Amino acid sequence: MSKLRIGIIGLGTVGCGVYKTLQNHENIEIVKIAVKNLNKKRSVEPPSSMLTDNPFEVVNDSSIDVVVELIGGVEPAYSYLEAAIKNGKHIVTANKELLAKRGAEIFKLAEEYNRVILYEAAIAGGIPIIMPIKTILAGNKINKIHAILNGTTNYILTKMDVEGASYEDVLKEAQELGYAETDPTGDVEGFDAAYKITTLATIAFKKKIKLENVYREGITKIRKEDMKEANEFGYKIKLIATASIDENNNADVRVHPMLISKDTTLAHIDYVTNAVELNGFPLGKVVLSGPGAGEFPTASSVVGDVLAIEAEFGKTDYLLPMMRCNHSEVANPIKIEDTYNKYYISITAPNAIGVIAKIGTICANKNISLSSILQRGVSKDNTADITVITEKCQEKLIREAVAELTECRINSIIRVAD
Amino acid sequence: MSKLRIGIIGLGTVGCGVYKTLQNHENIEIVKIAVKNLNKKRSVEPPSSMLTDNPFEVVNDSSIDVVVELIGGVEPAYSYLEAAIKNGKHIVTANKELLAKRGAEIFKLAEEYNRVILYEAAIAGGIPIIMPIKTILAGNKINKIHAILNGTTNYILTKMDVEGASYEDVLKEAQELGYAETDPTGDVEGFDAAYKITTLATIAFKKKIKLENVYREGITKIRKEDMKEANEFGYKIKLIATASIDENNNADVRVHPMLISKDTTLAHIDYVTNAVELNGFPLGKVVLSGPGAGEFPTASSVVGDVLAIEAEFGKTDYLLPMMRCNHSEVANPIKIEDTYNKYYISITAPNAIGVIAKIGTICANKNISLSSILQRGVSKDNTADITVITEKCQEKLIREAVAELTECRINSIIRVAD
Repeated sequence: MSKLRIGIIGLGTVGCGVYKTLQNHENIEIVKIAVKNLNKKRSVEPPSSMLTDNPFEVVNDSSIDVVVELIGGVEPAYSYLEAAIKNGKHIVTANKELLAKRGAEIFKLAEEYNRVILYEAAIAGGIPIIMPIKTILAGNKINKIHAILNGTTNYILTKMDVEGASYEDVLKEAQELGYAETDPTGDVEGFDAAYKITTLATIAFKKKIKLENVYREGITKIRKEDMKEANEFGYKIKLIATASIDENNNADVRVHPMLISKDTTLAHIDYVTNAVELNGFPLGKVVLSGPGAGEFPTASSVVGDVLAIEAEFGKTDYLLPMMRCNHSEVANPIKIEDTYNKYYISITAPNAIGVIAKIGTICANKNISLSSILQRGVSKDNTADITVITEKCQEKLIREAVAELTECRINSIIRVAD
Repeated sequence: MSKLRIGIIGLGTVGCGVYKTLQNHENIEIVKIAVKNLNKKRSVEPPSSMLTDNPFEVVNDSSIDVVVELIGGVEPAYSYLEAAIKNGKHIVTANKELLAKRGAEIFKLAEEYNRVILYEAAIAGGIPIIMPIKTILAGNKINKIHAILNGTTNYILTKMDVEGASYEDVLKEAQELGYAETDPTGDVEGFDAAYKITTLATIAFKKKIKLENVYREGITKIRKEDMKEANEFGYKIKLIATASIDENNNADVRVHPMLISKDTTLAHIDYVTNAVELNGFPLGKVVLSGPGAGEFPTASSVVGDVLAIEAEFGKTDYLLPMMRCNHSEVANPIKIEDTYNKYYISITAPNAIGVIAKIGTICANKNISLSSILQRGVSKDNTADITVITEKCQEKLIREAVAELTECRINSIIRVAD
């Protein structure tokens, strides 16, 4: 049997992990690797004849069967993959941003050229999620996803919870430890998780979700006081990527902090671990958790995809039929204002007298039911800190209600998972 | 495209779930269903022409492509599957006992006739585990599994924990609710979990594990006092199916109660939910959890397997190459006496004076280190209840040490997960 011939674009952390892992697979041969800097010191040392600083030498090499793209970002990655597909190569990629922004185009191109694009590593790192959804769960109608898809923010929130520390202090520590980048925006503002849930929901719902319709809020405004209050009410605060779709093809996809009941598995997913909860019929609910990033976990998924191609290689007409992506139907987006949620609201009232009555009246007028309310005494300056958790109500009404609390300071509004 | 033609043997709870779920799949046609009682009232009513009370009418029907076996037990199920394979049919089965006891034979037969046997539903019900191990995790060397594979015992242990109730009381309630059978032996003595871990470890380690080498202990001796003590030490007690294999192909596979740290995901898998923790390289650790049984979750896995065959049907020579099973190499069993574990030991000493010293001396003589020891006062009759947790030591030595505590009553010895 002839070996499957692989070209790799990008030899950073994940690339090195893939290189090391593929050494154990004798049916796979790494032919060429494109790197940015030919002289950089790495944890692996491929023969210099294997290295090039021109990615087109990989995608145009007629002897290569599969291109593994590990550089990230939309361009120039898209151009490399486009050329590779047109040259008849199958694609394995870990590029969540490219898939979220230009997935529809690249999948269409692959279909046209009868090639597969596999991307297990792009969503939740080492956790097996894409292939299970496309294969063993294929008999299901998946209609709801709750997921923790960003390790950096989960690390920060876990530390804030465990140590009672502030966001700023934990972020600084995470940056020192290398868990957060110098510019943490992509993680802490939820962009990374938004890319991932866009693709994950598209695959799970078999309907195209557009990134621009994904509502997004980060974790920068979460206060240590919120963590403490959430705990006392029986919750943890997590950055949750969530997606649901109804029978009329209306999809609600978003990334924002949420209070999650301690009775759930997701509440106990801590530090850099990721998790995906899938709900569907006939399945019910499953939770898959594990390492969401890192050299070796990500390599596990990349290599799994390569081996799936290897197992069926030579049967081009039928290659991995379950793994094909062609979601021409676009889901209808639901605006965040129109969604229904429970809310945790932390309020500081300047004058304690009558404030509970006022909150109650405003909520009653909007038909908002309160499920919990907590005031711990009155401060010396006659202010009062009040925490409220509502029953399910429309986001629009909550925003109106909060706007009417003109004399109060709203410290936090965080949605609460069902 | 011609439809994939299915025959089903067994139309109980799972069979009905499969029947209902397959109605949504237009490329699949149920041709014939073998039932025990043609006149039984069921939640589905297939046309009577579809039903037979002779399973050989299913396995000998030349128009059927795939036989779905849902009756359980070794015989007559084995004979039906044997005939089906010899008649050129692919097999989907939920039969954990058959796979554990005669898996090697039936997989060999399938290989010989170039047919696949898929069995996602046999292990952990709706949780995607077999197909992920065989496909997206194929690049890994999995070397350790911890799993909760039996819903009945997990339900009982959770109830004992939450309600502080005794095993006997919770069992009775579980039987009334239909979560435990009238004769609960298969569940509570760990047979069911032993069947599942036998097959799961075989697949994950790619080495044949023999059922007779799987050490097994049930949950009938767990006392409510043990649940309480475990909690105070920071643990939960779960019936854990565990398997590990070393570099020399020595496999340690067993089912027994274990103390599991509350810091782990498994400790929070409650009631009838199942979970599988896989450890390997390059992956690290993943935990997959979900419904381990039930009409629809099990149907999800059965239908997933059917769809996998459907997706590649017509390409017989290469059908599902990653899903083939051929583990000719048998793992070397490790005897339980030779394993190393931490132990929780509950002791009642008749005479409180000097007993701690004696326990300490006996353990020291065997080189057993104690990590925790707790005595809560002395009873009026001068007895003392003492709880000990050891560091890792050999089972043989623990048994010897306990035998030397002649004047004490040993209430419980339960192994503690690392």
